Amino acid sequence: MKKHNFYAGPSILPQYTLDKTAEAIHDFAGTGLSIMEISHRSKEFVAVMEEAQQLFKELLKIPEGYSVLFLGGGASTQFAMVPYNLLRKKAAYLNTGSWAKKAIKEAQGFGEVDVVGSSEDKLFNYIPEFTIPKNVDYFHITSNNTIYGTEIKYDIDSPVPLVADMSSDIFSRPVNVSKYALIYGGAQKNLAPAGVTFVIIKNDILGKVSRHIPTMLNYQTHIEKESMFNTPPVLPVFAALQTLYWLKNNGGIEAMHKVDEHKAGLLYNEIDRNPLFRATVSNQKDRSIMNICFVMNQGYEGLEKSFLDFATSRGMIGIKGHRSVGGFRASTYNALPVESVQALIDVMQEFEQQNK
Amino acid sequence: MKKHNFYAGPSILPQYTLDKTAEAIHDFAGTGLSIMEISHRSKEFVAVMEEAQQLFKELLKIPEGYSVLFLGGGASTQFAMVPYNLLRKKAAYLNTGSWAKKAIKEAQGFGEVDVVGSSEDKLFNYIPEFTIPKNVDYFHITSNNTIYGTEIKYDIDSPVPLVADMSSDIFSRPVNVSKYALIYGGAQKNLAPAGVTFVIIKNDILGKVSRHIPTMLNYQTHIEKESMFNTPPVLPVFAALQTLYWLKNNGGIEAMHKVDEHKAGLLYNEIDRNPLFRATVSNQKDRSIMNICFVMNQGYEGLEKSFLDFATSRGMIGIKGHRSVGGFRASTYNALPVESVQALIDVMQEFEQQNK
Repeated sequence: MKKHNFYAGPSILPQYTLDKTAEAIHDFAGTGLSIMEISHRSKEFVAVMEEAQQLFKELLKIPEGYSVLFLGGGASTQFAMVPYNLLRKKAAYLNTGSWAKKAIKEAQGFGEVDVVGSSEDKLFNYIPEFTIPKNVDYFHITSNNTIYGTEIKYDIDSPVPLVADMSSDIFSRPVNVSKYALIYGGAQKNLAPAGVTFVIIKNDILGKVSRHIPTMLNYQTHIEKESMFNTPPVLPVFAALQTLYWLKNNGGIEAMHKVDEHKAGLLYNEIDRNPLFRATVSNQKDRSIMNICFVMNQGYEGLEKSFLDFATSRGMIGIKGHRSVGGFRASTYNALPVESVQALIDVMQEFEQQNK
Repeated sequence: MKKHNFYAGPSILPQYTLDKTAEAIHDFAGTGLSIMEISHRSKEFVAVMEEAQQLFKELLKIPEGYSVLFLGGGASTQFAMVPYNLLRKKAAYLNTGSWAKKAIKEAQGFGEVDVVGSSEDKLFNYIPEFTIPKNVDYFHITSNNTIYGTEIKYDIDSPVPLVADMSSDIFSRPVNVSKYALIYGGAQKNLAPAGVTFVIIKNDILGKVSRHIPTMLNYQTHIEKESMFNTPPVLPVFAALQTLYWLKNNGGIEAMHKVDEHKAGLLYNEIDRNPLFRATVSNQKDRSIMNICFVMNQGYEGLEKSFLDFATSRGMIGIKGHRSVGGFRASTYNALPVESVQALIDVMQEFEQQNK
């Protein structure tokens, strides 16, 4: 049976990325060696690292003055690295969910944190209003909230350096990078297998804190050594490059954005139409196009387990909602084909016929 | 032409590990999904993580009271994590090379460091004598010095907690883990592709420092969540498990140690015999069985480039010595077959015939 991979992350990757990586496990770049056992200092891998940085810049139209880094440690390590490198006295954070809260907690270990907006009152099912103070070192947002299905789908005008965790929506829409001081994310959604973290950083924001920064936590280290200060996660970086090729060959971010909006539109339409289901995020403008969260509608709550079993039996994988929200979550990342969205819609309609 | 992979790291892995990983890229554990796109919370991957920890403990005969962690960030991140978690006032370090120096530098950011021995006077070509002070929080060693080819091949009796960076000799000899408080290493030599770091930690050594520790840098976080606090490097952990299976199926660490000693013995014998070459480490007891460093002998210095080209033309990969030592380095990690060592010896003898 055909499986449809709706996992929230690690999550579906392009078949192209999988095939090229499997090939490179047997023979990487004609070296006769595996990508798993080649020196990161070999000219063949150095070329991969350089090309990945270059293509990242090209696809996102990153202006001069920014560096692209590929690091280990996950976005969770960035929660600490951001304040370690940037927080002098006070930073502003927007509290839009679990990941934002974790970022806030880490920042509090380094200075004062001003939480300028929160949607915790309604289980984070909307993006809160906020005003960015002018007297803070930076303003931090989580652009897409994987667990709750909300997304900030535009580039904020900020009077202070803007920092964004884009783990789960990078490459799903064109971004005006010049409005950001730093963008980071775990790569295991739209880019690569787990194990590599990307950072886009405006070089001139560094050097303003006076605390001692351990070498590996200092962005300057990785900028100077072009992500090769220590052994980078070789295979995940190689896989990331394959996804970047795939993205470029499929029309780049603008084309991807149209497909992503189309897929999300199809599914939200069905959720809004189908009397058995209800989207957890009601405000259209806050609805994520990457993670679509829905629950059983009033009167049908008892059917939750039944629908999960039914959908699973039809090949839907990973649609159980996060335990803090319940219900269902369909993640529709770049690599998910529209056929998988249609298959889920068919399952929802069939279930409706059986249960209405 | 057959390639012989002598890279110092990332380096050769068992064919078994490569084959199983390539298979899992197409279908992981019968899920119909790739190891690159499966949730780390899936029961199939949770089983991989648990089994890798279990087999690590079994093979190294790790006693009760220790945890095994699989983290991101590389051994370079451990250079900071160790003092972050363990250094109250003063720590002792043994300076046996570049990696030891980097570890020392990071520790100096957190407290006083007593360097109790150094072999820097002779380009680190021996293991220095040392006395471990009783008034320090821990004593740190680099058990194998990849760049210089020296190794501490026994378990030190230490009056204070013993911390060892075993990045490049883990699984090459039986280790009495009970003598150590903490052992760590990048996995990209004897275990897995780059991207995962192992930590063996005695649980009761924690909780004694008063400084604030960022969540991701706190060992306690990862012990409590069994390396699943955040998304672990899924594919590298899967590959590590395959290498652990291979190790177990090939007789475990005792059997591997015999093979490693045999391979190193063959090569050191040839270096000592062949008038064209000279080992950089003359003291037998300090000679690494993982990284065998040699240079052109007196009178033959002019042949260095010539030998490198000759060996490369015969399929020898990665034998150029580190720039700080020059000459040659043959890394003979667990997965390197004895045939590759023999092939290198043949090349050395052929070159001798042509040039003596």
